[in-house]
Amino acid sequence: MNKYLTLHPWHIIEEGFNGANQKSSESLFSIGNGRMGQRASFEESYSGETLLGNYIGGVYYPDPTKVGYWKHGYPAYFAKLVNTTSWIGIDIQIGKEKLDLAKCKVHDFLRTLNMQEGYLERSFIAEFPSGKQVKVHSKRFLSIVDREIGAVRYAITPLNFSSEIAITPYLDSNMKNDWANYGDRFSDPYYREAHKGEAYLTIETCKTNFHVCTGMKFAVVQNDKQVVINPELIAHETYVANTVKVQCLEGEETVIYKYAAILASLYYAKEELLETCAKLLHQAFHKGFESLLAEQAAAWIVKWEHSDVTIEGDVAAQQAIRFNIFQLNQTYTGQDPELNIGPKGYTGEKYGGVTYWDTEAYCLPFYLATSGEEAAKSLLLYRYKHLPKAIENAENIGLYGRAALYPMVTVNGEECHNEWEITFEEIHRNGAMAYAIYNYVRYTGDKNYLVEYGLEVLIALARFWQKRASFSTVKNKYVILGVTGPNEYENNVDNNWYTNILASWTLDYTQEVISYVKQVNPEKFHQIATKTKLQENDEILLWRKVRENMYFPKDEKLGIFLQQDNYLDKEQRLAKELDPSERPLNQHWSWDRILRSCFIKQADVLQGIYFFEENYDLETIKRNFDFYEPRTVHESSLSPCVHAILAAKLGYEDKAYEMYLRTARLDLDDYNHEVKEGCHITSMAGSWLAIVQGFGGMRVRNNELHFKPMIIPNWQFYAFKIIFRDNLLNIKVSKECVEIANESTAPIGVWVYDKRYLVEGKGLVNIM
Amino acid sequence: MNKYLTLHPWHIIEEGFNGANQKSSESLFSIGNGRMGQRASFEESYSGETLLGNYIGGVYYPDPTKVGYWKHGYPAYFAKLVNTTSWIGIDIQIGKEKLDLAKCKVHDFLRTLNMQEGYLERSFIAEFPSGKQVKVHSKRFLSIVDREIGAVRYAITPLNFSSEIAITPYLDSNMKNDWANYGDRFSDPYYREAHKGEAYLTIETCKTNFHVCTGMKFAVVQNDKQVVINPELIAHETYVANTVKVQCLEGEETVIYKYAAILASLYYAKEELLETCAKLLHQAFHKGFESLLAEQAAAWIVKWEHSDVTIEGDVAAQQAIRFNIFQLNQTYTGQDPELNIGPKGYTGEKYGGVTYWDTEAYCLPFYLATSGEEAAKSLLLYRYKHLPKAIENAENIGLYGRAALYPMVTVNGEECHNEWEITFEEIHRNGAMAYAIYNYVRYTGDKNYLVEYGLEVLIALARFWQKRASFSTVKNKYVILGVTGPNEYENNVDNNWYTNILASWTLDYTQEVISYVKQVNPEKFHQIATKTKLQENDEILLWRKVRENMYFPKDEKLGIFLQQDNYLDKEQRLAKELDPSERPLNQHWSWDRILRSCFIKQADVLQGIYFFEENYDLETIKRNFDFYEPRTVHESSLSPCVHAILAAKLGYEDKAYEMYLRTARLDLDDYNHEVKEGCHITSMAGSWLAIVQGFGGMRVRNNELHFKPMIIPNWQFYAFKIIFRDNLLNIKVSKECVEIANESTAPIGVWVYDKRYLVEGKGLVNIM
Repeated sequence: MNKYLTLHPWHIIEEGFNGANQKSSESLFSIGNGRMGQRASFEESYSGETLLGNYIGGVYYPDPTKVGYWKHGYPAYFAKLVNTTSWIGIDIQIGKEKLDLAKCKVHDFLRTLNMQEGYLERSFIAEFPSGKQVKVHSKRFLSIVDREIGAVRYAITPLNFSSEIAITPYLDSNMKNDWANYGDRFSDPYYREAHKGEAYLTIETCKTNFHVCTGMKFAVVQNDKQVVINPELIAHETYVANTVKVQCLEGEETVIYKYAAILASLYYAKEELLETCAKLLHQAFHKGFESLLAEQAAAWIVKWEHSDVTIEGDVAAQQAIRFNIFQLNQTYTGQDPELNIGPKGYTGEKYGGVTYWDTEAYCLPFYLATSGEEAAKSLLLYRYKHLPKAIENAENIGLYGRAALYPMVTVNGEECHNEWEITFEEIHRNGAMAYAIYNYVRYTGDKNYLVEYGLEVLIALARFWQKRASFSTVKNKYVILGVTGPNEYENNVDNNWYTNILASWTLDYTQEVISYVKQVNPEKFHQIATKTKLQENDEILLWRKVRENMYFPKDEKLGIFLQQDNYLDKEQRLAKELDPSERPLNQHWSWDRILRSCFIKQADVLQGIYFFEENYDLETIKRNFDFYEPRTVHESSLSPCVHAILAAKLGYEDKAYEMYLRTARLDLDDYNHEVKEGCHITSMAGSWLAIVQGFGGMRVRNNELHFKPMIIPNWQFYAFKIIFRDNLLNIKVSKECVEIANESTAPIGVWVYDKRYLVEGKGLVNIM
Repeated sequence: MNKYLTLHPWHIIEEGFNGANQKSSESLFSIGNGRMGQRASFEESYSGETLLGNYIGGVYYPDPTKVGYWKHGYPAYFAKLVNTTSWIGIDIQIGKEKLDLAKCKVHDFLRTLNMQEGYLERSFIAEFPSGKQVKVHSKRFLSIVDREIGAVRYAITPLNFSSEIAITPYLDSNMKNDWANYGDRFSDPYYREAHKGEAYLTIETCKTNFHVCTGMKFAVVQNDKQVVINPELIAHETYVANTVKVQCLEGEETVIYKYAAILASLYYAKEELLETCAKLLHQAFHKGFESLLAEQAAAWIVKWEHSDVTIEGDVAAQQAIRFNIFQLNQTYTGQDPELNIGPKGYTGEKYGGVTYWDTEAYCLPFYLATSGEEAAKSLLLYRYKHLPKAIENAENIGLYGRAALYPMVTVNGEECHNEWEITFEEIHRNGAMAYAIYNYVRYTGDKNYLVEYGLEVLIALARFWQKRASFSTVKNKYVILGVTGPNEYENNVDNNWYTNILASWTLDYTQEVISYVKQVNPEKFHQIATKTKLQENDEILLWRKVRENMYFPKDEKLGIFLQQDNYLDKEQRLAKELDPSERPLNQHWSWDRILRSCFIKQADVLQGIYFFEENYDLETIKRNFDFYEPRTVHESSLSPCVHAILAAKLGYEDKAYEMYLRTARLDLDDYNHEVKEGCHITSMAGSWLAIVQGFGGMRVRNNELHFKPMIIPNWQFYAFKIIFRDNLLNIKVSKECVEIANESTAPIGVWVYDKRYLVEGKGLVNIM
C-alpha cells in the first residue's frame, strides 16, 4: 500500500510534491475521453522519473513476439497502443534556468483531478537554484464534447523578480513505448510544419501505417490581453515548437492557452488529416479555453447524472467509487465501434491497451446500466465482427468446422498472447463471450440481437465446446482436459469446474436461442443455418449429448464443487497462514510452488457461482464461499469484486466491505505497488458491481429489476443510478429504508426484498 | 529424412557437393578431442550458408535470459559455449578470383570423416567463372594426443593454368554465436600479433573473462621443399594473417601445412597463455603434420580397441554405431574434470554445449564400459562439486534444509533453463543423479565412492524428495504434484509414475547407503552427518514414511502403471493413426493439443521400467510396453534407445531393430531435418546401449556380467568390447554362438543365458 492522496468526495488530490510518486500520480491523474488518453505528466520539462504517455484507441503497433522457446501456433506479435505525439508540452526558461521540478525546490504543490467536471489542475511555487520563485497554475483536459481536442491553461507568475521568460509550447513525437519487447520504435516521423502561434506534426505508425496528425495553437495573455508574439519557429523531424520571449513582471500572471487537435487516420482519410486538424484546431482556438471547459464540465455533469454512486458517511469509499466510474467513463464511451477497454485503459502501457475477457466478464454490466444499451451493444458487436478471426483461432489449436475460439488478447480479432498455458488453454474466455450475449439480452430485453448477431456467435461457441470436450471412458463422461481457469495459479488442469459449467451452459443456451430464432424469424434462422453450415439435427444432438454428460468435479463430503480434478490432493492451507513477506506469491515463490499450492489467485468456482447463482441454493453458495475464499490470495485485481458480491449476498458484512475497499481503492491506495504501470481500469467495473449487485443486491429476473440491499454500518446511506430499459432510476439505501426514484416518465415495476413495487413515472417509492 | 551419405564401415562419406547440405555436413563431419570441437566448415572462403563453429569445453558466455513473461526464480542467463577463434582458415586467391565453392563449379567433391584414425579429409576440383580449374585436397584433425593442437594439410594444384596464387592462412575471432538471445557478442578481442609464418590472437569472453589464445604457424611446400616466403603481415583487432604469393605451375601441387595451438585460460594462467601457446605451436610445427597424424591415428586405434562395436552383414548399422561411438569419444574423454557432455557436443550451438540429465541417464554406462571407471567417476564428481549450488537451487523453489535440486541445464552448477514447466517441474532429473551413483557403483564395485562422495549427494537428494512430496488426505498417500516427467509432451501433471518411482527408490537407496557407510566407516559417516546436519533418526523415519506411503498411479484393468494421474481420461489413439503430415507434432500442433493428447514424446513409464526392470516380471513389462510404445511418437532423440532395449528383452525383433536404426542413424539419415543444428551426441550413447544392453542383453548383477544376446536376422554377427573392472572383454554374437574373449590376464566369471562361465585370462568361451 502507498497512501499519499487526500480524501475528498469529488476530487483526487495530491498535496506536496514527492518525485517518488510521480509515475504513480501520472497513472492516477490520467485524463481521457474514450478515444484517447494522456498520463498526468507535467507540461513543463521534468528530468525526474516519468512516463510521458499519450495513447489513442486502436492506433497500435504489432510488437514482435518475445518468448524463450517458440511453440507452434504462437502469434507473431502483441498489439500495443503507440505512445503518440505529446501535445501538452510547454517549456519555461528564465535566463539560464529551465523550469524542472526535479531541479527546483517545490512549495505548495497541489494536484487535483476534478472528476465532477473532468479536468486536471495543478499549482505550485518553484524556487530555482538562483533563488527566483515562480508560481504556476495549470489546468488541462481532453474534451469529451469535441473528441479531438485537448486544451491547457498554463499560468506563470514571477514572485520575487521581473524578467523576460522564454515560453516554448511544442509538440514532440520522439516518444518511446516503455513496454516494448525489443526496444523497437513504434512510429516514424511523417510530416511537420511550424508557423507563428501554431504547428503540426504527423507520425506514421510502423508496420500498421496509421497516421496521427497533431496540431497546436496557442496564445499568450497578460492582463487579459493577448500578447503580440514574434516567435522563433522550430520544426525538426519529431519536434515542432514556437519559442516566445515575454517580459513578465513580479507578481503579474502570464497565461499560455494551448490548444491541441489530435486526429488519427482511423476516423479521417489520411490525405485530409492535416486540413481537418487545422480546421478543428482553429475552431477550438476561437471557442476559447473557458468555453471549452464549460462544455466539458456540463458534459461530465450529464454523465454523472446516470452513472453516479453516492456514499454518505465514508469519504474513502465515496471517492473510490467515483474514481472508478470516472476512469471507466474516460476509457470507453460506446461511441466508437472499433474501440474496447484495455485492462489499463489509456493510463499505462502494460497489457498493450488492448482487449481481454475482462470486457465481457466485468465491464459490460457497468456500461449497460450507466451508458445504456447502445454503448453495451457496441462491445458485443466488436466480438461479432471478430468472429471470422476467432474461427481461424480455433483452427490454430486443431478445432476445425467453424468453431470459434476468441483470442485471449486482441486489437483486431487476432490472438496476441504468447504463453501456451494462457493463449491456448485459458479457453474459459469463450464462455464469457456467450455469457455477455445472455447478460446483454437479459438486461436490455433486446432479443432481436440474438436474431441479428448473437446466434451466429453462439453456434460457433457451442461448436467449440463440443469439439474441445472429449469423452473419458474411465469417467464415462465428457471431460475438458488441459485448461487454465480464471485462477491462473493453476495451469493445464483437467475439468476446471468453471470452464465445464460455462461450456455446458453455452451448449444449452445456444440450443435455446436456436429454438427462439427459429420461432420468431424462421427465414433469418435459415439464413444463419446456411451461413454457418449448421447441421441442425446432428449438431444439436451432439451438443445435447456433451452437455448432458458433462463431468463436474465435486467433493460430496465437503459439499463443494471442485475447482478442478484432484484439487483436494493438495496440501490444504489458508491464505491467512501465509507470512506477509511471501505476498504477493508471484513475486516470492517459484511458479511450480504456486501451482502445487492450494492458493487461488482469483475467483474461479466462485466466479461460476456468481454467473449462475440462481442455480444454487444459499447453503451451497455458502459452503463454496466458506471453502474457497480463505484460500484466495486475490492477486488479480478481478478477484475481490466477485467476493464482495457473494459476501454481501451471504450477509458477510465485514468481508463484503473489506473486498469492496480492496477493489475500489486498489489503485488509489496502491495495494500492489504497481499503479505506476497504469490503473486497473477493467476491475474498476467490479467496484461498481460490488456496490450495485453486492450491497444493492440488484439482479434482473424475468425482465424486471430485483434488489436486496444491505448497508455497511458506518455508511449513512448510499445511492446509485441505473438505466434500465426505458427508465432512469435512483436507488438510495439507508439504514432505515430503500428509496427508489424513477426519473423517467414511464412507470416501472421493481422488486425489493422479493416484493414488487410499481414506481410511477417521476415517482418514488420508499420501502421501510 | 535426408539420406545423402555413402555407406562404409569406417568412414562417413559425402560424394558430390550440394550447398543445401553444407550445414548438415558441417555437423556430421565435425572433429573434436574432448576438450574442443570444430564443425566441418571449409578452410577456404565460403559464401554459401554455413555455421563456422569452434567451441571449447567450459569456455562459456552467460547469455541473458529471454522470456516472454518473467516468473520469479528464473535464472538470469543461459550458459553457452562461445564460438571462439577460427583456426582452419586458408584463403586462396588466383588473380581476381577467390576460391569459394558457392561461386565455382565443383567436380569430384568427396568429403570423408575417417573415424578409424580420427581425421577429416576433403578433395574436389573447382572451376572458376574464368574457366581456371584447381584441384584441392585437404586433411585436418584436432589431436587427441596433443590436446591443444589442430593441424591442416591443404594441397592445391592448378589443372589448366600456371599462375601466382595468393595464399592467406589466418586466424579469425570475429565469430558470432548463432544461438544468441539478443545477438550479443560473446567475446571481445584482447591481443593480436603477426609475424612471418606465424600469428596469434587472444580473445576474452564477455562477462566470464575467459581468455583463449590461438596461434598459427604454417609452411608452404612445393616438390617436397619448403617455399621461402615473404608474406604480407596482417593484424587487425579480430584477424591475423599472412598473405603469401606463390608461383604455381600447372599440374604441380602446392601444399600448405597449417598448425594451430588453441589454449584456454581454464588450463593455463592468463599471463602465460601466449608464451605457452607459442611453445606448443612450435613443438607441433617441428613434429610435423604426418607425425602428428600418425600419433592421432595410433591413439584412435587404441580407443577403438576398447570401444568398438562390429556388425557384420549390415553396413548401415555398422557405420551408424561407429559414428555414434566416434562422436561420443570426440566429445568427452574423462580427462578434464570440469567438462561434461552437451546434447550436441561441440557439433552445434543448440542447448549451449552445456550439461543436461542426459549425461547421467544415458551417457554414463557408455563411458563406464568403454573408457573405464575414472572417466565415469569424473562425471559423477562433476555433480558432487555442484552440490552446494544444487542446494541453493532447491531453496529457489522453496525447499529449505539442505535438500538438493540439480539444475536442468548447467555449466557451473547454476540453473540456466527458463521454462517453468521444465526448469521448476522436470525434477525427475534428480532421480537420474541418484541412479547414476547406483549405476556407477554397481558397475565398478567402487563402493568407496559412496563413502567419499556419494552419500553426501544422496542425503541431499533424499531430502529433496521427502520435502517435495506432500500428503494427500484424499488418497491417504504421499503424492508428488505438479511435475513434468521425461515425456515433455505432458506438463504440470500429478504423480508422474516415473518421478514417483525414482523418488521412492532414492529414499530407499539413501537409507541403504547410510547403513553401509555407517558400517564400513563410522568415523566418516559421523563427519558426513555433521557436515550435512543429518538428523539421523527423525529424517530417516520421515523418508521411510514417505517411501512406504508413496502413491503410484496404475490401472488394474489394463494391468499397467499410469504415466500420471488421469492419463486414461485422455482420448486413446495410436501414433500410427496420425497423418504423416502432422509429424513431428510439435511443428504442427499447438501445445495444448499435444498436452491433452495421449501421445508420448519419449519413454516415461518405460524409462522407469528400464531402470528398475529387475523389479518387474516379464508379463508386466510386456503389458506396459504394448500399451505405451504404440502411443509414443519418439520426438525426442532419447526415446528410441530405451524402446530398443526393452523390445529386445521382450523378443520383439523387428521393433528392436527399427528402434536401433532410429537412434543410431538419427543424424546420418537426418530423421528430423535438424542435423544442421548439430548432432544428437547424448542420444548416441543410447545407440550403444541398444546394442549392448538391448541385443547383447548385458546386465550387471551381484558384481558380475550377465548376457542374454539376440541377433537381428540379417546380421552375420556383431561384437562389442567391454571394460568391466579388471577385464577387457570382447563379446561376439552370431546366429550360432556367443563367444566371449577375455583380453585381460585376470579370469572372470560371466553369465550367458543365466548360466555362469569362467573365462580365463586371455581365454575365450564359446557358448553354442
